Amino acid sequence: MFEEYDVIVVGAGHAGCEAAAAAANMGSKVLLVTMNMHTIAQMSCNPAMGGVAKGQIVREVDALGGQSGIISDRTMIQFRMLNRSKGPAMWSPRCQSDRQMFANEWRETLEKTPNVDFWQDMVRELIVKDGRAVGVKTNLGIEIMAKSVVLTNGTFLNGLIHIGEKNFGGGRTGERAATGITEQLVTLGFEAGRMKTGTPPRVDGRSLNYELMEEQPGDEVPGKFSYADTTSLTHQRSCWITYTNQDVHDILKTGFDKSPMFSGRIKGLGPRYCPSVEDKINRFADKDRHQIFVEPEGWNTVEVYVNGFSTSLPEDIQLKALRKISGFENVKMFRPGYAIEYDYFPPTQLKLTLETHLIENLYFAGQINGTTGYEEAACQGLMAGMNAHLKIREQNPFVLKRSEAYIGVLIDDLINKGTEEPYRMFTSRAEYRTLLRQDNADIRLTERSHAVGLADDKRLENVRRKIAQTAELVAELMKIKVAPEVVNSQLDDYRTSPIKDKTTLHQLLKRPQLTMQEIRKIQPQFSDYLDGFEEDAIEQTEIHVKYDSYIEKEQMMVDKMSRMEDLAIVGNFNYDKVQALSFEGREKLKKAKPQTIGQASRISGVSPSDISVLMIHIGR
Amino acid sequence: MFEEYDVIVVGAGHAGCEAAAAAANMGSKVLLVTMNMHTIAQMSCNPAMGGVAKGQIVREVDALGGQSGIISDRTMIQFRMLNRSKGPAMWSPRCQSDRQMFANEWRETLEKTPNVDFWQDMVRELIVKDGRAVGVKTNLGIEIMAKSVVLTNGTFLNGLIHIGEKNFGGGRTGERAATGITEQLVTLGFEAGRMKTGTPPRVDGRSLNYELMEEQPGDEVPGKFSYADTTSLTHQRSCWITYTNQDVHDILKTGFDKSPMFSGRIKGLGPRYCPSVEDKINRFADKDRHQIFVEPEGWNTVEVYVNGFSTSLPEDIQLKALRKISGFENVKMFRPGYAIEYDYFPPTQLKLTLETHLIENLYFAGQINGTTGYEEAACQGLMAGMNAHLKIREQNPFVLKRSEAYIGVLIDDLINKGTEEPYRMFTSRAEYRTLLRQDNADIRLTERSHAVGLADDKRLENVRRKIAQTAELVAELMKIKVAPEVVNSQLDDYRTSPIKDKTTLHQLLKRPQLTMQEIRKIQPQFSDYLDGFEEDAIEQTEIHVKYDSYIEKEQMMVDKMSRMEDLAIVGNFNYDKVQALSFEGREKLKKAKPQTIGQASRISGVSPSDISVLMIHIGR
Ligand SMILES: Cc1cc2nc3c(=O)[nH]c(=O)nc-3n(C[C@H](O)[C@H](O)[C@H](O)COP(=O)(O)OP(=O)(O)OC[C@H]3O[C@@H](n4cnc5c(N)ncnc54)[C@H](O)[C@@H]3O)c2cc1C
Ligand SMILES: Cc1cc2nc3c(=O)[nH]c(=O)nc-3n(C[C@H](O)[C@H](O)[C@H](O)COP(=O)(O)OP(=O)(O)OC[C@H]3O[C@@H](n4cnc5c(N)ncnc54)[C@H](O)[C@@H]3O)c2cc1C
Repeated sequence: MFEEYDVIVVGAGHAGCEAAAAAANMGSKVLLVTMNMHTIAQMSCNPAMGGVAKGQIVREVDALGGQSGIISDRTMIQFRMLNRSKGPAMWSPRCQSDRQMFANEWRETLEKTPNVDFWQDMVRELIVKDGRAVGVKTNLGIEIMAKSVVLTNGTFLNGLIHIGEKNFGGGRTGERAATGITEQLVTLGFEAGRMKTGTPPRVDGRSLNYELMEEQPGDEVPGKFSYADTTSLTHQRSCWITYTNQDVHDILKTGFDKSPMFSGRIKGLGPRYCPSVEDKINRFADKDRHQIFVEPEGWNTVEVYVNGFSTSLPEDIQLKALRKISGFENVKMFRPGYAIEYDYFPPTQLKLTLETHLIENLYFAGQINGTTGYEEAACQGLMAGMNAHLKIREQNPFVLKRSEAYIGVLIDDLINKGTEEPYRMFTSRAEYRTLLRQDNADIRLTERSHAVGLADDKRLENVRRKIAQTAELVAELMKIKVAPEVVNSQLDDYRTSPIKDKTTLHQLLKRPQLTMQEIRKIQPQFSDYLDGFEEDAIEQTEIHVKYDSYIEKEQMMVDKMSRMEDLAIVGNFNYDKVQALSFEGREKLKKAKPQTIGQASRISGVSPSDISVLMIHIGR
Repeated sequence: MFEEYDVIVVGAGHAGCEAAAAAANMGSKVLLVTMNMHTIAQMSCNPAMGGVAKGQIVREVDALGGQSGIISDRTMIQFRMLNRSKGPAMWSPRCQSDRQMFANEWRETLEKTPNVDFWQDMVRELIVKDGRAVGVKTNLGIEIMAKSVVLTNGTFLNGLIHIGEKNFGGGRTGERAATGITEQLVTLGFEAGRMKTGTPPRVDGRSLNYELMEEQPGDEVPGKFSYADTTSLTHQRSCWITYTNQDVHDILKTGFDKSPMFSGRIKGLGPRYCPSVEDKINRFADKDRHQIFVEPEGWNTVEVYVNGFSTSLPEDIQLKALRKISGFENVKMFRPGYAIEYDYFPPTQLKLTLETHLIENLYFAGQINGTTGYEEAACQGLMAGMNAHLKIREQNPFVLKRSEAYIGVLIDDLINKGTEEPYRMFTSRAEYRTLLRQDNADIRLTERSHAVGLADDKRLENVRRKIAQTAELVAELMKIKVAPEVVNSQLDDYRTSPIKDKTTLHQLLKRPQLTMQEIRKIQPQFSDYLDGFEEDAIEQTEIHVKYDSYIEKEQMMVDKMSRMEDLAIVGNFNYDKVQALSFEGREKLKKAKPQTIGQASRISGVSPSDISVLMIHIGR
């Protein structure tokens, strides 16, 4: 009953939505199949986008022409640029979202995408022919054919929810689990595993005493995610900070014997960096308090998200413990926290395009690959959607290097190292984080995406203007010289040493005490001239002038590494012949079949000395 | 872990939301337990409120201080007053709603109701002690105590969804069914039954050709539901009309052998007045086409509701048949239509307060009582919530008579006659429909509701002003006389016969050719005077003047009937002693234990002659 589609995307979470939008905007006919059209782009856990490293990913998704940035901008209730006091490599945009608006906005965006069709149903089987994915079979028994399939099932595959000693099937609380797909994929030869994640209780904001908490307002001048022309907030909602204490911990401990985690009922590994509150108490027994962020779920709702209090202890223990938190004395819960176990597929079974090795034209993106987080899911969806589109048109794959994007780091990590626990992005995972900044994602990525047909002309125009204006400004700063007698008293005011000879503005701007604000005051004509430029170009110029030595150094490193990185290993390389390889290294290399030395170097179990041995054998 | 509540409401559909709001606004501490907080007040079927008889109910709910009218006003995308060309007894307000906004607005309203707490969970058992409901037990195993419980489970109890030859458990598509409650209630002695209802496919508005359909815009001067100070729409979205045809019917017929209805797989009875399209074709074989209303689901969404095409035929047949409808040639479906079977409890097991006979302080409201429709559900919820509150405070029950409200008719019908098929309201069910108009629900009900503490002072003030202004206007119209020489030429213009003597405006206004508009022109001073009055008082005056003879006649009928109506039958009346009763009548009377002759007269199976016999025995 359906036409043949170019791409079927299974699941409308963050990964699925980006995948569908990307493939469709590039020109593919897309069908988005999801279990419930009312839960498109539901935020399963905290109502927030971005944060450290994750904010950079949202900026990258946006620079590539994805939708998450625009939608976040339209639905945020608070914006903060984290780490503003550190160098620009660490600046990380983060917003608090209106959960319901975020979901509505995604749905509207997809509905306005002409090439996206919708079908509400559960996919329970893939149709595979001659080793290629050619469609899906649904719970209604319908067969829908397509040239490729992107699976983005999130936490739904055989999802099992735990609260205390109770557990029941479900993909999220109140929603069914999805069955069938794991079983089929295992039959087809895929390896599957089990992971777990958790979420805190939701509480009634009317029952909290905010006077006992610390207010955390948004930035005074709120920024935004998208490089496109979305607008910034004019008013914002605050979050609040409070803390657990010894009483809270003591009560929580009374539930440990009923904890599904400590008792071993939960088999899947959870995210070490996003621990449950019982985990924190257990592992950091010396800490007498843990921070709690009290986050509103939207503009108007009284529902509140208790960030930092993820738990799967029995619900009565959750409530009793919450009531010992300052400001929570009379708290009422809407629903308890819980943990969920679900199936994932170790991502070492994927190519850099997120296509599976085993089945052609089958792509996996999001939590199904063992990641956690909306941003991680969204960027994989985007990349899978783009590559699904390119593949069926027999065009070159779209792959990002580790030196080009956090997205490149993420996918490279996943497919080469795999992951035993839910993978989330950190800045420390990136070797070149001075290059991978939130302010230059457009410069890094928009042109490349435009070349393959995703980022539109307007975006390209914007980034080209930004690049040109930055270059012009840098040149101008180098040209304009100021004389000691004119500026030294001002420099003294700014607590920076006087100059002896005529000095360029460029050199002055390098000084840590001087920002573009001060330069404007030092040289008012230049300030007038600056007014003809876009804010983002001015900011870019400032970052470039101040940090160019770091940036250059890192760029040189990239160039050097990339020579090694790109050293090809021929397809049928015989590792057994290379005696000097470690046993583990050899086995891993034989399994992973890396295409370059760079890739080989990142396979877990392959040691640096294995790499040296390999390079010798390849002839370097 | 919970405090003891006054009222626990199970389910947050239209019945549950009104029940929670009503009890809470009267002062009860209420807990609303529902399976998924994201689906509060979901419209399961068509995105519309009101309509013939149903619109009157929404006005009544509003007049009593319920929320459905206000929420409809805030979220409508189109308003029409149906039957405007008929007498005011038939005028029926109806709106097209934004489905998502409607649900959001309900949730916000409840969140802003201080006495309503929320808990997301499934209730699977009642806690009953000494024949009284004292709490609920949830799926998480939590026991929550309360002084009374209102069950509003809608279509969720053992819900079974059918599409063609497939069926699966679910309360609505994409949502789980609820289990446990029916089984327990049956053990407690309740009789349970099975009903079914159906819904049409949802389609992609982008794939429709509206040029082949007839536009149905909203009213030029759109009205609204609430007597409170909500605002009317300034712009509206249109609906569209198209028709099935012989081709459509022929294709649908090819699926009849797989129809769950025709094959007997569906055991429950469906709503005869809301038939599926296959039913219509089957039963009205001579009709060569059926009307289809093409209704947008909101301001921005492209999802479209195909009103008139409810079906549970296989999804491929649904699609093929749709494509033969004019304007639907290229239609794409989002999800197929389906039928759902669910448990209900024959409402003859209830008192007029909606409390069950068997278990004290246990109330049933909505679809669980065998009704269908949001409005029918909402008004029962309101009445159950009010009565649950009043009962635990040992105050008099709040019961509406058949002559006071459609709500009175509905509840009286349900508990006395029961219902074999899903019960929906029609104007024909009301004996006194000239009295039960949409324009006077506030006059009929607000004072009564205010007296028991639901309708607020503002509402009372509004209706008192309306009554006073109406009285003043009627008196004024009777006072002002116009002379033949002054008005006869104008009367001629309005094609109504000239007057011979001085005549009051009151008498002129009675003429069918003259409305208040013409009276204004005939007597400009009066027109200026009118400007000092509210619109609703002016309208009320006009209706009163034009229809007072009908209204009076009906009121006399009510008075006469109510004398009989209120004739009490003593509690232990021995029907076996009354030999002249019919066998069936006697059995029904013994079972239903009516409290008055009026109630007895409406029990199905009790004949008019049984009533005469009874009256003689009672001493009349
Ligand atoms: C309880 C919980 C706690 C979490 N806690 C955290 C946390 O602390 N930190 C963090 O960063 N992240 C957390 N997450 C993870 C975060 O929600 C996910 O990483 C992110 O939503 C993944 O996006 P996705 O698109 O891969 O999948 P999801 O957002 O899960 O979306 C999957 C979609 O696929 C649909 N679907 C699934 N199977 C089928 C099928 N067979 N047929 C049709 N449709 C199907 C579903 O209906 C859903 O729409 C948590 C998630 C959950 C459920
Ligand atoms: C497929 C379908 C087609 C329909 N077609 C029509 C039609 O053509 N015309 C018409 O007038 N009406 C139709 N209806 C009926 C209309 O939707 C209902 O009459 C109305 O929604 C009933 O309101 P309610 O409050 O009784 O129940 P619902 O709106 O069904 O709400 C029930 C609520 O209770 C919750 N719940 C149920 N069990 C539990 C539990 N054990 N614990 C906690 N929460 C629970 C559910 O999650 C839900 O929120 C249709 C309904 C469906 C599902």
